[in-house]
Amino acid sequence: MAYNLWYWPSIQGRGEFVRLALEAAGIDYRDCARELGAEALMADMAKHAPRAPFAPPYLEIDGHVIAQVANILAFLGTQHDLAPTNLADRYWIQQLQLTVADVVAEVHNVHHPVEMMAYYDEQKPEAARAAAQFRSERLPKFLTYLEDAVAAGGDWTIDGRWTYVDTSLFQLVEGLRYMFPRRMAAIAGQYPNLIRIRDQVADLPGIRAYLKSDRRLPFNEDGIFRHYPELDGE
Amino acid sequence: MAYNLWYWPSIQGRGEFVRLALEAAGIDYRDCARELGAEALMADMAKHAPRAPFAPPYLEIDGHVIAQVANILAFLGTQHDLAPTNLADRYWIQQLQLTVADVVAEVHNVHHPVEMMAYYDEQKPEAARAAAQFRSERLPKFLTYLEDAVAAGGDWTIDGRWTYVDTSLFQLVEGLRYMFPRRMAAIAGQYPNLIRIRDQVADLPGIRAYLKSDRRLPFNEDGIFRHYPELDGE
Repeated sequence: MAYNLWYWPSIQGRGEFVRLALEAAGIDYRDCARELGAEALMADMAKHAPRAPFAPPYLEIDGHVIAQVANILAFLGTQHDLAPTNLADRYWIQQLQLTVADVVAEVHNVHHPVEMMAYYDEQKPEAARAAAQFRSERLPKFLTYLEDAVAAGGDWTIDGRWTYVDTSLFQLVEGLRYMFPRRMAAIAGQYPNLIRIRDQVADLPGIRAYLKSDRRLPFNEDGIFRHYPELDGE
Repeated sequence: MAYNLWYWPSIQGRGEFVRLALEAAGIDYRDCARELGAEALMADMAKHAPRAPFAPPYLEIDGHVIAQVANILAFLGTQHDLAPTNLADRYWIQQLQLTVADVVAEVHNVHHPVEMMAYYDEQKPEAARAAAQFRSERLPKFLTYLEDAVAAGGDWTIDGRWTYVDTSLFQLVEGLRYMFPRRMAAIAGQYPNLIRIRDQVADLPGIRAYLKSDRRLPFNEDGIFRHYPELDGE
């Protein structure tokens, strides 16, 4: 039985971390709101009360709903062998996934520092300040941490085979390159293992097919990773 | 064997979500940096490379390290029966825990909207704007969601007994009341079940003893929940 994945139909956003794991593993799923639209998504969310998700993405199967990206990936990891089997490794990659989630939250904060529910245009000077600190302090701190974590693994972050944290690292690198092309070009050489994981994920058969398909939405300025040239740096 | 818990010694912060679960369950632990100081914490973190935590809190046992609050709580939940045994409930409370983590991140962003690594004093007008939107939009949205989730449970969020999400909800309510006393007093009546869970957790024998002990640090303006009267509202 296929999973129903629900996420905003016009952006990669947080849903993309789930899509990538499903696509890489060849797990059957229906990207429901891409077929039915955002209103159908909102109607579906409400239907699951009192165990409704707070926000998409969520996965639905047999009436059960699982939300929060790291939680969904932990579930898929257990059910579909996308996570290591031993406990120490399993908590380790979940920790890395939650750290990726922290980066993603900070990335969103860069273009929406003072009013999450308002437009970027209403907070451009504040965003410029947030971006400067993100580029100079937070970005290298996170990337250095993830680089060291990945460098200590084997061919992949763990286990000699890809897990959900590898597909997530792919998306993180892709997103950061889209959002900060100049800055990332300048510093990418410091993170050879992260770039290697990115390249290996791009070359997985399921991901190669996915990236060429129209299921992969392009990045855009409604998503989490947004390219505003004025927020980039050398 | 006791766990070693490592967290900044002078704040409740994110570490408090772990302390509360340990204290409520009567699990033996050593709050290492309270004894040894913040420098010992930083030295210990580095020792665990390449599987070092990105940031505290983390739990160490037998040389293994688990970091990220929700990950630590999932581990304790599994090992010490602080989580439901059936899978649907287990992913559900982890989802709620991750939603609590999202609130906590947004709370931190209220007083540090544009420069996470700078002082509050350097971003007061921006914080005032972030606080206004948090109070009027995000806070009621999160609390309404959590209220509905809790209202659908039994005596506790799930299972007729407390789990780690209940101790986390206690801390969330306590923190929000400390940070926004006027605002929370004005709206608390809309969240009777959250307040009930807060009161029940406060009355657990382990928590009663903990709150009276000097192990419970007071809230302060170095932590995540900070009381700046100018950020509160009616």
